[in-house]
Amino acid sequence: MFVDVLIEKIKEKNNPSVIGLDAKIEYVPSFIREEAYEKYGKNIKGVAKAILTFNKYIIDAVYDVVPAVKPQLAYYEMYGLEGLQTFYETCRYAKEKGLIIIADGKRNDIGSTAQSYSTAFLGKTEIDESTKEATFDTDALTVNPYFGVDGIKPFIEDCKKYNKGIFVLVKTSNNSSGQIQDMVTQGGKSIYEIVAEYVEDWGQSLKGKYGYSSVGAVVGATYPNQAKIIRKILKSGYILVPGYGAQGGTARDVAHSFNSDGLGAIVNASRSIMCAYQSDMWKGQYSEEKFYEASRAEALRMKDDINSVL
Amino acid sequence: MFVDVLIEKIKEKNNPSVIGLDAKIEYVPSFIREEAYEKYGKNIKGVAKAILTFNKYIIDAVYDVVPAVKPQLAYYEMYGLEGLQTFYETCRYAKEKGLIIIADGKRNDIGSTAQSYSTAFLGKTEIDESTKEATFDTDALTVNPYFGVDGIKPFIEDCKKYNKGIFVLVKTSNNSSGQIQDMVTQGGKSIYEIVAEYVEDWGQSLKGKYGYSSVGAVVGATYPNQAKIIRKILKSGYILVPGYGAQGGTARDVAHSFNSDGLGAIVNASRSIMCAYQSDMWKGQYSEEKFYEASRAEALRMKDDINSVL
Repeated sequence: MFVDVLIEKIKEKNNPSVIGLDAKIEYVPSFIREEAYEKYGKNIKGVAKAILTFNKYIIDAVYDVVPAVKPQLAYYEMYGLEGLQTFYETCRYAKEKGLIIIADGKRNDIGSTAQSYSTAFLGKTEIDESTKEATFDTDALTVNPYFGVDGIKPFIEDCKKYNKGIFVLVKTSNNSSGQIQDMVTQGGKSIYEIVAEYVEDWGQSLKGKYGYSSVGAVVGATYPNQAKIIRKILKSGYILVPGYGAQGGTARDVAHSFNSDGLGAIVNASRSIMCAYQSDMWKGQYSEEKFYEASRAEALRMKDDINSVL
Repeated sequence: MFVDVLIEKIKEKNNPSVIGLDAKIEYVPSFIREEAYEKYGKNIKGVAKAILTFNKYIIDAVYDVVPAVKPQLAYYEMYGLEGLQTFYETCRYAKEKGLIIIADGKRNDIGSTAQSYSTAFLGKTEIDESTKEATFDTDALTVNPYFGVDGIKPFIEDCKKYNKGIFVLVKTSNNSSGQIQDMVTQGGKSIYEIVAEYVEDWGQSLKGKYGYSSVGAVVGATYPNQAKIIRKILKSGYILVPGYGAQGGTARDVAHSFNSDGLGAIVNASRSIMCAYQSDMWKGQYSEEKFYEASRAEALRMKDDINSVL
């Protein structure tokens, strides 16, 4: 069961946080960039290879600190086929290091098409009746709820079959998320509350031994008041919390997504970890060549910061 | 302006329809499959190559009939990196044949990440300050509205800069689409009406010479009553209509998405065209070897069917 493995890794590392691997080429130190450009050319391929090297440095620096990584698919798609090759290899490398991989793709579509997305990231692709191959083979995927349950069912079936998880968008961290998500319906509930109820319902058949479900929710750290409400609705849903760090969410803000048992949420930080070497806090202490040590220092600081409020 | 080019191609071919290229390997005739398996192996690569060959046959058979094709990204992602290579090559081939390419990815995320998706499909990727490369370089992309305007702005900027378009999900064709989309808010409007109003608003800066905007909407053929309402709200939005054919939508159903000028909508059919050779209507007349002739016959039948109600 995905959620049980997640919880056990969180406990083992005493760290409910996940590192987002969303590298733009601007984040990559120049010595890595230059080496890749020399070898592969100053083009998309060179960029994609530089990002792969960068990701491996980060993974090497944090794999004993965090339970999971969250590569954001948009940043790999931006670099085309070479970028997606880097996504694939980053996932393989992180898996070898024992990390859980949450593919952040915000995918979804109508049922038959949702099945194809599920197959791509969680399931296995049929070559013929007797042959199947895993393609991206990540451990969990973020999904969009706009289609209703038709778009969720295929993922749930694959979660059961292959021990995988999903995190459904409930309340996103951006400024305009209220334009749809905060709309109040005639029954008096907002859309994010209704979606949270759906998520709780959808997850009933995927509850693990700690009482949590492999069907989780995405709730931005930038909305602590809504997080309080959602945490109450989601009796069993694990919450993936983006928006800590560079987006402005604090440890106090993310605390609302946890339960009193110290479980129930996992907090993501991307830029603040990847670009720690450029940040005011660390740039005096670590050179660009030692950027990964700054990332590790920031990952440890974040761990302590979050644990301090639980 | 994307929407002007779309309208001109629709007029030139007298055909407001688009063919979905969403091939699963089961759709591909066995002679194509076997040839690909012999050459590349009975594996993901063989499958991806078979689908590329299949797509090229379909494109060759219909490029003078339809203005556009709509490859569904989920089906390519399902076949991993090889599948995405097929997506890329299918787009290049369709473009050479003068077809408009609507990438059906239902992508979106918070602003900075939405920018990366936009860059991937509509824009150009920065290598450094002076070098940019187009990656997937499609003409339009379907996008999900759940994040509100933050998630839409980056696409709109790229639509302006690169003459591209987007189609925002308003009312999707699946059974459970009402779970969120039909929720009625305290102001008395449903979510799909509110999203339609947003789409109309978002598209104001992208209106072309025929009065339509490059910011369009997705409205399923399976909901003709809602389509009537949405058509009234969307004064300038072009509507992409999935759900005709295999999903059960008829020409009469899709008619509601058009305006009295015969413009305002483009209707998609995927399975009914790709698998025409297996359908009750055509399988007596075309052998599996001539599957593409069945696809052409069905594309022509669909064109007449839709034009008959406009």
